[in-house]
Amino acid sequence: RISWISDIIVVVSPENIETMKTIIEKYGHKRVTVVEGGITRHRSIFNGLKVFAENEFSSHLLQKPEVVIIHDAVRPFVEEDIVSKVVMAAKEHGAAGAVRPLVSTVIASAADGCLDHSLERARYRASEMPQAFLFDIIYEAYQQCTDYDLDYGTECLHLALKYCKTNAKLVEGTADLWKVTYKRDLYAAESIIKDNLSQQVCVITGGKETLAQVGFLLPESLKSQIKVEAISIPLRKNDSHLQNIIAGQCYNFVCVNDKRCAIQETQELVDMLEKSNIPLLCPVVLILVHLDISENNSFSIGMEDLTTIKKFARETKKKNILVYGLLIQYK
Amino acid sequence: RISWISDIIVVVSPENIETMKTIIEKYGHKRVTVVEGGITRHRSIFNGLKVFAENEFSSHLLQKPEVVIIHDAVRPFVEEDIVSKVVMAAKEHGAAGAVRPLVSTVIASAADGCLDHSLERARYRASEMPQAFLFDIIYEAYQQCTDYDLDYGTECLHLALKYCKTNAKLVEGTADLWKVTYKRDLYAAESIIKDNLSQQVCVITGGKETLAQVGFLLPESLKSQIKVEAISIPLRKNDSHLQNIIAGQCYNFVCVNDKRCAIQETQELVDMLEKSNIPLLCPVVLILVHLDISENNSFSIGMEDLTTIKKFARETKKKNILVYGLLIQYK
Repeated sequence: RISWISDIIVVVSPENIETMKTIIEKYGHKRVTVVEGGITRHRSIFNGLKVFAENEFSSHLLQKPEVVIIHDAVRPFVEEDIVSKVVMAAKEHGAAGAVRPLVSTVIASAADGCLDHSLERARYRASEMPQAFLFDIIYEAYQQCTDYDLDYGTECLHLALKYCKTNAKLVEGTADLWKVTYKRDLYAAESIIKDNLSQQVCVITGGKETLAQVGFLLPESLKSQIKVEAISIPLRKNDSHLQNIIAGQCYNFVCVNDKRCAIQETQELVDMLEKSNIPLLCPVVLILVHLDISENNSFSIGMEDLTTIKKFARETKKKNILVYGLLIQYK
Repeated sequence: RISWISDIIVVVSPENIETMKTIIEKYGHKRVTVVEGGITRHRSIFNGLKVFAENEFSSHLLQKPEVVIIHDAVRPFVEEDIVSKVVMAAKEHGAAGAVRPLVSTVIASAADGCLDHSLERARYRASEMPQAFLFDIIYEAYQQCTDYDLDYGTECLHLALKYCKTNAKLVEGTADLWKVTYKRDLYAAESIIKDNLSQQVCVITGGKETLAQVGFLLPESLKSQIKVEAISIPLRKNDSHLQNIIAGQCYNFVCVNDKRCAIQETQELVDMLEKSNIPLLCPVVLILVHLDISENNSFSIGMEDLTTIKKFARETKKKNILVYGLLIQYK
């Protein structure tokens, strides 16, 4: 997703390594190396860093980077902007990390389970991810730190401070950086993804007059609720306007046609989508509207056409493109 | 919701007082007094406490309680169990509050925006709500505290410690106590409510043989997905089994009937629901299934019946009971 990142190391628990490799292959992710995790957070991160420095991983030995970013998979909504800010700060200060205001007051408890003291909320911040480090600093810190640190520590910025005297720069992060921790966070994540996917729809109509009218009316009525792109030319391979829309991460398409079965034109769109790798991230929804504008009163679609569309939809579904057919009689 | 709480003080910002009063009236909430909030958290809580102690609020002066619970409206999923634990601990220790483990490491930043030090995560907890206090202790603390405390403080447990030397007992809370703070938290809250509402369905069928069969088959096929209660007797007023189900907070009902328009029986259920106050909290869904088991082939419902059902549904909707009709031909 971010082109200036040269290598991605995914640290995974031993029992999930095969699943992770399958996912990486299925979605065609490039630049990714899978590494076995340790029994604690710090041991896992250390394993990831070793890929750039130690011979025991020689079959994967990658070029040592100037700056390394450390991130959690439980914060899936990280934006390029904050990653870039943290990296620039790490280049200057040796270490940097995203922080957020505290949502609750933090208190220390005494041995008897009673309040010992409470912290002044404004003086403290929650340390979040991503964090970035000059590779030499964080690698040095991990090499120097004790088993106690590796087993009980949770904070990389702390290691950089303790073992390399590097005071990390703290960068204000966005609310998106929260950690998907509880079941409710999964609900929230699901809703955010759905929201993002349904922000834009592209309406494609053929060149005929009646169709062009629909191509005008449909976007008009939709645009109060959603961002709409309208294209009122027949589908052509390599149409640059359409390619720009796809590149802009549009996941919803409505194709209005007056042909009984416009599989061929649709195939061109499917080909373009497939090439774009867009469907690898999230499902694309493609609604084929057959607009029956004939004077003929019979309202039907032949079994043959139906079978063709169903077969077509079954094939595209494997590519994460969901095709729906709609037959509308329009007089 | 909790019967042993004698009075509820809702502290609201001046511009929302009328809205809050409308809500309280609409849903028939009892034991509630609305009080105008202050410009900070502590000033608002202090205003709430004054209702029990000061003459300036004399028109509302309520009996001074032994223990007072302080809670945020942004934590709507609080369970009776934790409220009760916090109250019992406050009776013994003078003050008590719910705590949760920290999700992120907490760090202190220096004046230059760099890391000063990080806290050992295991030693600290997030202070959440509800909290409870002996009334005399917390009221004394608010009377003694400075303007600085009132303007910049955030922690009631801290006031009890500082001004009344009371070390609050910390009670481990559940994950439900999180604060609805960001848009994603609204998504999560919505999903939790929907989940809770759809955990149980009650299927009510008449006594006839064919209906009894449906009354058996429908629960059987539903029970792998949801908790099902089945009642296969005609609806009677004050049926104790049905009343127990309603009291157990069932929000979904399916009534299977062979009469064309079973409004009268349905009205009895609506009356029972209304009396239970269940629909005041969340909408109740009532699906009326008319099972056509006649040999007659004509598949229709008269305009008259349709109008009756629509009118009925419109009336019950005002009571937060949503009625849906379904006509099934069954041979």
